[in-house]
Amino acid sequence: MSGTRTIALDAMGGDYGPEVVVPGAATALVRHPELSFKLFGDEARINAVLAAHPALAARAQVVHTDLVIAMTDKPSQALRRGKGSSMWLPLEAVRDGKADVAVSAGNTGALMAMSKLVLRPIAGIERPAIAALWPTIRNECIVLDVGANIGASARQLCDFALMGAAMARALFHLETPSVGLLNVGVEDIKGADEVKIANGWLRETAGLPIDYRGFVEGDQIGQGVVDVVVVEGFAGNIALKTAEGTARQIGEYIKAAMTRSFMSRVGAAFARGGLRSLKDKMDPRRVNGGTFLGLNGVAIKSHGGTDALGFASAIDLGYDMAEAALVGRLTSDLEVFHGKLASMAPG
Amino acid sequence: MSGTRTIALDAMGGDYGPEVVVPGAATALVRHPELSFKLFGDEARINAVLAAHPALAARAQVVHTDLVIAMTDKPSQALRRGKGSSMWLPLEAVRDGKADVAVSAGNTGALMAMSKLVLRPIAGIERPAIAALWPTIRNECIVLDVGANIGASARQLCDFALMGAAMARALFHLETPSVGLLNVGVEDIKGADEVKIANGWLRETAGLPIDYRGFVEGDQIGQGVVDVVVVEGFAGNIALKTAEGTARQIGEYIKAAMTRSFMSRVGAAFARGGLRSLKDKMDPRRVNGGTFLGLNGVAIKSHGGTDALGFASAIDLGYDMAEAALVGRLTSDLEVFHGKLASMAPG
Repeated sequence: MSGTRTIALDAMGGDYGPEVVVPGAATALVRHPELSFKLFGDEARINAVLAAHPALAARAQVVHTDLVIAMTDKPSQALRRGKGSSMWLPLEAVRDGKADVAVSAGNTGALMAMSKLVLRPIAGIERPAIAALWPTIRNECIVLDVGANIGASARQLCDFALMGAAMARALFHLETPSVGLLNVGVEDIKGADEVKIANGWLRETAGLPIDYRGFVEGDQIGQGVVDVVVVEGFAGNIALKTAEGTARQIGEYIKAAMTRSFMSRVGAAFARGGLRSLKDKMDPRRVNGGTFLGLNGVAIKSHGGTDALGFASAIDLGYDMAEAALVGRLTSDLEVFHGKLASMAPG
Repeated sequence: MSGTRTIALDAMGGDYGPEVVVPGAATALVRHPELSFKLFGDEARINAVLAAHPALAARAQVVHTDLVIAMTDKPSQALRRGKGSSMWLPLEAVRDGKADVAVSAGNTGALMAMSKLVLRPIAGIERPAIAALWPTIRNECIVLDVGANIGASARQLCDFALMGAAMARALFHLETPSVGLLNVGVEDIKGADEVKIANGWLRETAGLPIDYRGFVEGDQIGQGVVDVVVVEGFAGNIALKTAEGTARQIGEYIKAAMTRSFMSRVGAAFARGGLRSLKDKMDPRRVNGGTFLGLNGVAIKSHGGTDALGFASAIDLGYDMAEAALVGRLTSDLEVFHGKLASMAPG
């Protein structure tokens, strides 16, 4: 089912620019030899790194631009003076059908603002969301929104459910992914009315390709109880960062526990294989990349501080989304759902 | 500075009732021999367990009641028919000055509702909060609100900061605990206006015994960057549960990694001491207990499924709070702060 896919890369984004982006693309090309690339940024710097990657050079087009968005630029600044930048041009290539996916390790706020402006939300979508891949004890799940916006209406939460399910179909090859709505456990908590209303609406999704499972709590995300976890962006961002922080914290405990006595150092030496597989499971590079969903095109945000392996994972993610024709399928799901909603709650 | 402290216990709360509560109290008594206890619940069941703990029996008064709040009761039901129950009477003992602290492993929603009704909020406090102790790579920090309410106004967030600081002074013996406001990192995020306003107000806390440090992100909680982390209850509850879930998830990875080959099993045997100290650090029983803050009296919620060791930790927590005369100090801090606020933003 695959044709040639073109990935448009912001070669200047992130902490290292072409030094990470170019080797990352080379790694992704080994995995997907049919890919071709457009690299936007400082031609001299890009070509200097590309010289060491002849296979990639043969399948890459370098498009020069002097304009680069700094990690410290505010989104409003980036929008004002960012047209034609190495972050802007990949999005334009996607919009114009010259690339399937844009990937940048640049500043999240700027990339989100530009993506909205250049790619535009899918008809009927009030707000795009950022989706994260979250490792679980089963496989991975998708959590959204992890920070595109603060707060979400019931309708926006339902849209997130459909967007996440479309992404799960693309990535996990499931026909009807399971979806849960993140909520708190204390019964009498006031508020979260929008979560309760969304819960009611999502129970009426028969006919749509999602298997809605009701509420899930924070401690169930990592257990992999559902394929897609839906939450508004403030709590979602805090949950994601808290999980990352907890993993790092426990990593420090493990290191300390394994080096505190001679016996445990000996043990660690014997157990090295096991510890390495543990580290692999906890490796954030394996699941690098936030996906902007709800736009007429796919844009992927890689972590700014990632290395080539991490950047290659972000490209892989974009590749899978393009292969699955995510935007087209999502657009038709949303039409069905919004039609249902209109008949349930007119106005 | 310590006199005799009396702890009032809901002996029927939690999954095991007196079988956990009584041995938990016995453990706490070993640590704090000056404590005395009031045990509320089924006299026959309590006495049956108490027979095995003569030292505790000598310092405990058993008060019989037939009425027990079930874990499945809704808070509204619990309020309607809960007067005189084993959960209600400890709170009444605190209100009437017959006990210093109430501890229950019963249903959180019911305990919160009853605590508000019986103990009443401190003057000027619009909403009580539930504070959790959170293990960090340094020591512990206090996170609140972890689920008393959804959403919080700027003023309520500031009140939480003062409540958390008062608790940190009581538990960590710090004169001016450091406080951070949990926020998301993406610069251009809309909303969270109340968080921004609270940030402004908290910068004006000179003269109050808190060291305000500005925003913190979810991944910094476990790094112990501040003593107190303030957040509204929806995101706070999700953060807490997500951290617990991530710790459990990594625990499962460790177990799998350590048993997957003969070599790693050998290694695990050598490293047992290190692994045990890691398990201790991750042991939720060591930091068991949510504290209800902002009321005229201290009520502690122990996890329902905890064992005697965990229940003893919840009693220890209550003991420290009573020793520090938390409620009196908090009341005076709040008066100062609300006076300042009134002069800054009249109305």
